[in-house]
Amino acid sequence: MGTIGELGEFGLIGRLTRRLPQASPVLLGPGDDAAVVAAPDGRVAATADLLVEGRHFRRDWSGPYDIGRKAAAQNLADIAAMGARPTALLVGFAAPLSTDTAWAERLYDGLADECRAVGASVAGGDVVGASEITLAVTALGDLAGRPPLTRSGARPGDVVAVRGRLGLSAAGMRLLAEGRDGPAELLLAHRRPQPPYEAGEEARSLGATALLDVSDGLVQDLGHIAAASGVRIDVDSAALHVPDVLGPDGLRDVLTGGEDHAFAGTFPPAAALPPSWNAVGVVAEGTGVRVDGRPAEGGGWDHFRP
Amino acid sequence: MGTIGELGEFGLIGRLTRRLPQASPVLLGPGDDAAVVAAPDGRVAATADLLVEGRHFRRDWSGPYDIGRKAAAQNLADIAAMGARPTALLVGFAAPLSTDTAWAERLYDGLADECRAVGASVAGGDVVGASEITLAVTALGDLAGRPPLTRSGARPGDVVAVRGRLGLSAAGMRLLAEGRDGPAELLLAHRRPQPPYEAGEEARSLGATALLDVSDGLVQDLGHIAAASGVRIDVDSAALHVPDVLGPDGLRDVLTGGEDHAFAGTFPPAAALPPSWNAVGVVAEGTGVRVDGRPAEGGGWDHFRP
Repeated sequence: MGTIGELGEFGLIGRLTRRLPQASPVLLGPGDDAAVVAAPDGRVAATADLLVEGRHFRRDWSGPYDIGRKAAAQNLADIAAMGARPTALLVGFAAPLSTDTAWAERLYDGLADECRAVGASVAGGDVVGASEITLAVTALGDLAGRPPLTRSGARPGDVVAVRGRLGLSAAGMRLLAEGRDGPAELLLAHRRPQPPYEAGEEARSLGATALLDVSDGLVQDLGHIAAASGVRIDVDSAALHVPDVLGPDGLRDVLTGGEDHAFAGTFPPAAALPPSWNAVGVVAEGTGVRVDGRPAEGGGWDHFRP
Repeated sequence: MGTIGELGEFGLIGRLTRRLPQASPVLLGPGDDAAVVAAPDGRVAATADLLVEGRHFRRDWSGPYDIGRKAAAQNLADIAAMGARPTALLVGFAAPLSTDTAWAERLYDGLADECRAVGASVAGGDVVGASEITLAVTALGDLAGRPPLTRSGARPGDVVAVRGRLGLSAAGMRLLAEGRDGPAELLLAHRRPQPPYEAGEEARSLGATALLDVSDGLVQDLGHIAAASGVRIDVDSAALHVPDVLGPDGLRDVLTGGEDHAFAGTFPPAAALPPSWNAVGVVAEGTGVRVDGRPAEGGGWDHFRP
């Protein structure tokens, strides 16, 4: 099938675009100066991430399809964590001209399939030559007439709750770094996170006062809510679900592991949380995050860490 | 002032965010899982480009402020070329940790100032470490209740017209490659293009049937209109304005030079074009682009060219 350099810029765009079925929010898809995407309530939620080979993914650890799904997932989760419904992605793809066309096609298959799971699609983007593979993913979403669920609304007395899995991706990454080939559950969790997308709208219906998706580690990300809301967050480690597969040190991964894209939020004390949400702490007066009464070091993911 | 690595991810985000005043379309700016931007008519125009150091800009040719202005301009021009008003940018910034913080700050000053010129602002984004500097710019815009001005509406008999300067950026880039320090007008044109942003809305009011911004070269970009519209475009080279500063071979730069971000469109034969629009050709039955009756080779910019 050859390389993307042999295909050329416009040849590659044609090949990739044919693999991108468009969902109903996309009013004008790839091929013009800009895409046009529905924003039914007169606002659009928008977020963008850069993923750089060797830092955010490794081709020897993950195949292109999983890299695509993960790149889409982390941005779609950011939209869902605002209480919005994802509508579209724009994807910038920079790669060496020696990259296999088939690799690029599988990458876009992964992007498209993760979008399809939430009713969105890849509506546009860009391809350029570069010395390392970089993905620039922008996600757009519709707030459906409701206020965004920000990080700044937590109030003393609120309950802190988590929906989704924590710690598995970090444990899986450690296994890959050690060259191990299992447990499969952990490797898959690192390669293809499964954000509980529906948790955003669910949190809103439960009266959430703040919400985010846990991309950098629970303690670090709760720290963002604490800082934005001007409150302290107290986590009770005994309330955290530590999957057996994580082994004896699993609590550390649950507290600091990133990239599972669980959702963490704060809820009024009277909120009737269903079993899908795990109450793990309370909001108090003060600053920062404490775990079992002790100030917590973040220990989460830093995108500047080499 | 030190490097961005010394400052750390969140330190850098704080420093950059403080330099980004927010315009009125931004309802929720940087600091949450996603920004929220006004989309008054229930749709959003959205476009994304990747700019890679050494391919799309060179730090020894352009300072960070000009790189920022140009990166913003090329995306804002894409929005304007849809007939939309730019509302916001999202900017992903990948750079070596050894990058000077002051360099990054000036880059964002350039992004912010170019946005300010059109009533938009940098509403969000991402910073990551990488081995080469890459900018991922997404631009959003408001169509104000009107249909997007696509590439596909040109009809035989339409007039082809251009607004804005052509050829200067390519000539300036050649001078920089030759190590020359003038003419200043050409160097500035390459470093800091000045898209005629108002041309988008103006073209619409003149009844334009197709429109784009000339980013890759006039002939190549008119070829996109020809292909999308299923027509042929005949350019009369004698009608093109060739600035004296381009010298005796200037026509080639006007026909093939990219990155000036002039606007090219097609208009009904009866359109009363004001002097700001230069009629340079006609739309006919057929395919491709002809210049003075001869099929034109594109010769424009290919983002895969090393």
